[in-house]
Amino acid sequence: MTPGVTSLPETAKCKRCRGRATIPMPSHNANFCPDCFISFFETAVKRGMKRFPVAPSTPLLVAVSGGKDSLAAWNVLHDLGFTTRGLHIRLGIEGFSDASADSVAAFAGERGLPWVEHSLEAVIGFSIPEIHRRMRRKICSLCGMLKRQLLNRLSIQEGYEYVVVGHNLDDEAGRLLGNIVRNRTQYLDKQTPFLASTHPRLTAKLKPLYRLEGREIRTYCALKGIRFLEETCPLSRGATSHSFKEALQFLEERMPGTKRDFLFTFLSRQKPVASPRPFQNCKHCGEPAFGEICSVCNLLSLLQAKDQPHPGEGGPSPP
Amino acid sequence: MTPGVTSLPETAKCKRCRGRATIPMPSHNANFCPDCFISFFETAVKRGMKRFPVAPSTPLLVAVSGGKDSLAAWNVLHDLGFTTRGLHIRLGIEGFSDASADSVAAFAGERGLPWVEHSLEAVIGFSIPEIHRRMRRKICSLCGMLKRQLLNRLSIQEGYEYVVVGHNLDDEAGRLLGNIVRNRTQYLDKQTPFLASTHPRLTAKLKPLYRLEGREIRTYCALKGIRFLEETCPLSRGATSHSFKEALQFLEERMPGTKRDFLFTFLSRQKPVASPRPFQNCKHCGEPAFGEICSVCNLLSLLQAKDQPHPGEGGPSPP
Repeated sequence: MTPGVTSLPETAKCKRCRGRATIPMPSHNANFCPDCFISFFETAVKRGMKRFPVAPSTPLLVAVSGGKDSLAAWNVLHDLGFTTRGLHIRLGIEGFSDASADSVAAFAGERGLPWVEHSLEAVIGFSIPEIHRRMRRKICSLCGMLKRQLLNRLSIQEGYEYVVVGHNLDDEAGRLLGNIVRNRTQYLDKQTPFLASTHPRLTAKLKPLYRLEGREIRTYCALKGIRFLEETCPLSRGATSHSFKEALQFLEERMPGTKRDFLFTFLSRQKPVASPRPFQNCKHCGEPAFGEICSVCNLLSLLQAKDQPHPGEGGPSPP
Repeated sequence: MTPGVTSLPETAKCKRCRGRATIPMPSHNANFCPDCFISFFETAVKRGMKRFPVAPSTPLLVAVSGGKDSLAAWNVLHDLGFTTRGLHIRLGIEGFSDASADSVAAFAGERGLPWVEHSLEAVIGFSIPEIHRRMRRKICSLCGMLKRQLLNRLSIQEGYEYVVVGHNLDDEAGRLLGNIVRNRTQYLDKQTPFLASTHPRLTAKLKPLYRLEGREIRTYCALKGIRFLEETCPLSRGATSHSFKEALQFLEERMPGTKRDFLFTFLSRQKPVASPRPFQNCKHCGEPAFGEICSVCNLLSLLQAKDQPHPGEGGPSPP
């Protein structure tokens, strides 16, 4: 049995071609054969891409971590004829970052696709574990912010206007649930599969996999022979974003289709933002910022202030 | 150990009186001793009741099923000095309905509290199992609708303007989550702990336990010696409302306080309904109705049409 493909009885018929179905799709109330599954998968991506104001000839920079989502996004966009290039940001997490880069290198090498790697430490002077050590708090939201910021800066530096990220339906629906349950309504406007550029130094962001569930992407990788990094980041254990995805998955298993209905109805009712919050230019680095200082420079000044050993570790007490 | 009271280390201190705490309250980041817990519980009910436009001398009809929530609501309102009377609707579910009525009778008998029982079958001519048999669908939403409608009619008949229901924080937060995830935004206006009367033949509805979690109510029952029916309705297995409560409980255990923050922030941001949907009078029975026919008369005509044996069971085919 192909990994990622669950077994169905031998009599199961493909919803499209009536051939033998091997792939159950409970949220679509259907079963597919491998060929029709690939066609379904590519159609979902095409439907997504058609909604984005991106010409088919536009070169796309694909942010790749080495996990299933970003490699599947890169693979399907390449198969659909888009001109793509990979961008990997090395976070400096022992073991995990090497494995991530190896996974990207293997994927790109086998397919002859171009890619580039940048290191967080080389760009801002700190690796994720070093930031974690100094900040002494859960790293996920800081790491997310840094990846977003770097992705933007590096894509402009690499000469791209559009950057692709691998966020899937589970990610988007989970984030929506989290923002609603925690009453963070101020983030709901940004919950879209296409984020336009609203500043000359800001690339537009595309999420071509937003119509596809994690399990569908896993099946796609299995059928396409994409070997991805299974391991999750060792620093993300217990992240609240995981809990919201798990809660939604719990509901999905009892009421198949819940995740899609939840996300797609939200998106269909979403009104365009009348006047997006205007950016300023960061006083230190000139990058887009919501205040006088951008989030990266803000973090950097905090990190430098924390350069001293912690008082509890025997250093001098603060005055 | 008192049932419903989880164990804490012997050194745990009550957040209020600094005496020995035996009751953990993770969502309040506190532990309580039994006396302070009762005081906390009664304060939560008083805070709720103060928000409702109900004078302390107003007689209240308490809808009681025999479960923990409705008996706790009745008990605490009586202890707080309200004039109360119980109303039990017998649904005709074999075993379960007898056990429900026994639980109400024992509670009321021990405390010398007045109560009255009405039977669904006597009022509309059908028991819940008979409706279930004829309608051949999940019964929970129909049963809920019938209980709401009967509760309204019977409370007017019994001469009450205000009816109390036992819905707790878990019920309200679970329902809110369900309505949001399933995009049923049209129901969000009704998601309040006090529903005013908007028609002469409609009683106002109070939910005095909306600030209290199921586990807190269970502890209250244990401390007050309230013996309630533990059994859940045998026809409600797999109800979707249970799934949303379970999903929220999953989040609550990982992020204590999630349920209260979710519900209370929603309630605090809720705007009063500008013009509530106007009622008409049902053409058949004169009760408040959103269309020409009320939901009860609508169901009754469907039930009568289904009086014939099902075609598959050997009866004549429909013309």
